Amino acid sequence: MTAETRPVDHVIAALREFMGDRVTTNASIRDQHARGEDTTTPVQPDAVAFAETTEEVSKTLALCNRHGVPVVPFGAGTSLEGHVTPVRGGISLDLSRMNAILDVSQEDMDCLIEPGVTRHQLNDHLRDQGLFFPVDPGSHCTIGGMCATRASGTNAVRYGTIRENVMGLEVVMADGRVINTGSRTRKASNGYDLTRLIIGSEGTLGVVTKIRLRLHGIPEATSAAVVQFPDMKGCVESVIQVMQLGIPVARIELLDEVQVAACISYSKLDNLQILPTLFLEFHGTEAGVKEQAEAVEGIVTDMGGLGFAWAADQETRNKLWTARHNAYYAAIASQPNSRGVTTDVCVPISRLAEAILGAKQDIVSSGLSAPMVGHVGDGNFHTVILVDQDDPTALERAWALDRQIVARGLSLGGTCSGEHGVGMGKAEFLEQEHGMEALAVMRSVKIALDPKGILNPGKIFRN
Amino acid sequence: MTAETRPVDHVIAALREFMGDRVTTNASIRDQHARGEDTTTPVQPDAVAFAETTEEVSKTLALCNRHGVPVVPFGAGTSLEGHVTPVRGGISLDLSRMNAILDVSQEDMDCLIEPGVTRHQLNDHLRDQGLFFPVDPGSHCTIGGMCATRASGTNAVRYGTIRENVMGLEVVMADGRVINTGSRTRKASNGYDLTRLIIGSEGTLGVVTKIRLRLHGIPEATSAAVVQFPDMKGCVESVIQVMQLGIPVARIELLDEVQVAACISYSKLDNLQILPTLFLEFHGTEAGVKEQAEAVEGIVTDMGGLGFAWAADQETRNKLWTARHNAYYAAIASQPNSRGVTTDVCVPISRLAEAILGAKQDIVSSGLSAPMVGHVGDGNFHTVILVDQDDPTALERAWALDRQIVARGLSLGGTCSGEHGVGMGKAEFLEQEHGMEALAVMRSVKIALDPKGILNPGKIFRN
Repeated sequence: MTAETRPVDHVIAALREFMGDRVTTNASIRDQHARGEDTTTPVQPDAVAFAETTEEVSKTLALCNRHGVPVVPFGAGTSLEGHVTPVRGGISLDLSRMNAILDVSQEDMDCLIEPGVTRHQLNDHLRDQGLFFPVDPGSHCTIGGMCATRASGTNAVRYGTIRENVMGLEVVMADGRVINTGSRTRKASNGYDLTRLIIGSEGTLGVVTKIRLRLHGIPEATSAAVVQFPDMKGCVESVIQVMQLGIPVARIELLDEVQVAACISYSKLDNLQILPTLFLEFHGTEAGVKEQAEAVEGIVTDMGGLGFAWAADQETRNKLWTARHNAYYAAIASQPNSRGVTTDVCVPISRLAEAILGAKQDIVSSGLSAPMVGHVGDGNFHTVILVDQDDPTALERAWALDRQIVARGLSLGGTCSGEHGVGMGKAEFLEQEHGMEALAVMRSVKIALDPKGILNPGKIFRN
Repeated sequence: MTAETRPVDHVIAALREFMGDRVTTNASIRDQHARGEDTTTPVQPDAVAFAETTEEVSKTLALCNRHGVPVVPFGAGTSLEGHVTPVRGGISLDLSRMNAILDVSQEDMDCLIEPGVTRHQLNDHLRDQGLFFPVDPGSHCTIGGMCATRASGTNAVRYGTIRENVMGLEVVMADGRVINTGSRTRKASNGYDLTRLIIGSEGTLGVVTKIRLRLHGIPEATSAAVVQFPDMKGCVESVIQVMQLGIPVARIELLDEVQVAACISYSKLDNLQILPTLFLEFHGTEAGVKEQAEAVEGIVTDMGGLGFAWAADQETRNKLWTARHNAYYAAIASQPNSRGVTTDVCVPISRLAEAILGAKQDIVSSGLSAPMVGHVGDGNFHTVILVDQDDPTALERAWALDRQIVARGLSLGGTCSGEHGVGMGKAEFLEQEHGMEALAVMRSVKIALDPKGILNPGKIFRN
């Protein structure tokens, strides 16, 4: 077959008929769509299409389905597991220009947005209305991407993940059909839960083109605190106690001493020592926040915490959480010329100390540098294993360490991914985690909804 | 075909080989499995099988699948929408004997149970451990049935529905394969959300044989209150304000004056007047409960509430909530010889007053009696339309009223079912609610997972 007769070339020509120069084969744009922030081998798509409407997405999918051409949805490109790498070529469908906030209801505390809206954009828009969208993975991701990967982040311990905060979706199916899922009501028992089926399906079952989100009232009072510990054990055990007592903390984030060192350098947190640290936030009424903070202070003091530094004013809080959000970039910056292999193990809270202390030992044994952060109230922690891009053995050693940390997580009743998703990076663990039969059921659903396998092929399933 | 050669007879004979006399064709037992608490026409199954293990469920499904014989899972028989009516005969698979509580983890605040466990049984078991399972539909249903119908009830406004409180399931698929879904972790992004796909699928995609539930700590303090209103408008608008202010009430239940009259008579609530009424409950710390209750008291007073009667002691609270739980039976008892057609409309909270006041007008116009209760914090309310079983026109008139109330709910952006499920009773509304294409996607999933259509046929989909 010559290059001119490839199905993808037919598709590109047909896409140009209605999207014009928003369909491009420009090398540098294809390069920007060749992978996310991960360590997968970059693969250029045959073309990048910047969709602006649901109709364009629908026509694109119908065309690609007819010709058997892969489609890989693309948002902000912040994926950590190879989700946006077009491993089989085809069209990278960039949705970042579909970024309208279509409707906000103060009365019903919900909103309707397009998938390219980022959480920063949404929260800036909502601020004057006393509302906020709590799900906060830290990065500048799009909310469409958050739906695709079932994202969560620092606030999930209190407000739930994206799964609990999406009420309904508009989704374009593989053949171009447009469906609406869910309901504007707080609950419903009205047929199969297609919303939850699409959330976390990583672009393999359909492309999200609108999202109805649940919003929350900005709390009357917010305060934050930092507490450092002489060792990791007291730090983790404090978290376990806070959770077991049901104290409704809004955020409870762990940074190990390696990560704290990186943050001190990257984010100028000069008042911190290089020790395991918790960042905390409390939301509620004035009295409620005080009560929660006092309860937590009692626990961390008992566990050997070195003081409880309040950050009640907005500026100190912002500095703290900006540093936390930049933790990944601080980690990457702590070793020149590196990229990160990220683990995302999540375990039942009772096994958190074992999982974290074990991972710390594995890191030491590996000889690699791997700062650790964690949404520890949910039992979820990340190690960013730093890979020197000039060291040809580093990537393989990083994956070996990743496998070790995941294996321990699974043996403790945990999951290989708390929030980043499967993509390519975690696909090898799914059979062990779910069993062959459950994975076969997932495949049946995939085949039923995308019989030609055009939607983000090579992700979640290994083949 | 003679009776002896029917496929179902082969299945019954084969089932007896491993279940013995737990497979029965006894007429009175078949009659008990001919419908739930609804008004569907009773249909006897060909046999009832009382399963005791996952393996038996698996073998039963494999057999029925091979012979194309319908299987209808049965729990406590409290369904209100015809879910357990074996409209195409076959095997009623009774899971009520699978009622072991297999494991409770205080540390992780979760438990593993069999599907026949009722919420009463579970909460009795948990009480000494300081834990409770909050989802409370009122009836003596099984938790397996609650998973099947995506149930919720009085506490959902604070603790979520069953959907948010199930961490994972063991499910037997149509062909007998046993899968495990979900994870023991608080969150996971590890492939398709099969747990949420099964929850609310009403026995049409698989049979649940084990359930891992999230539990909650019994709150430090609980208090309850009753407030009556001279009219429905002030009552509903109080609810809307409480929700919009984000006050974390644990329960906020509405009873209209017709239902209050029924409860006064059935549950001896002699201190109440025959007026629209809210039952409230607050959970939290001592200070938190006080703060919430004072905030609500301020709102209801502004809205014309006639006092705020505290029920701080356990005995008064129990009497109140027992009366609320028996509201359905009180409604049925208020008119001799009647059964109920139940509406289950749920709307966005901003449309609740319109939905309820409109429904009240429809009831008056219909000339039927239909007490109303509601989990109004979620925008969900029920009318129990009373059908005199000796009046041959009553059922048709009740359905006409049901259709009117649902139609208004849908026009207000609501759903035909907040928590009872679709079954047969609400199937006619699904196409309007979801659109033809979304319904077609649901059907594709059904066909993929149950290609022979043996699992609870005739439910959710009209065909």
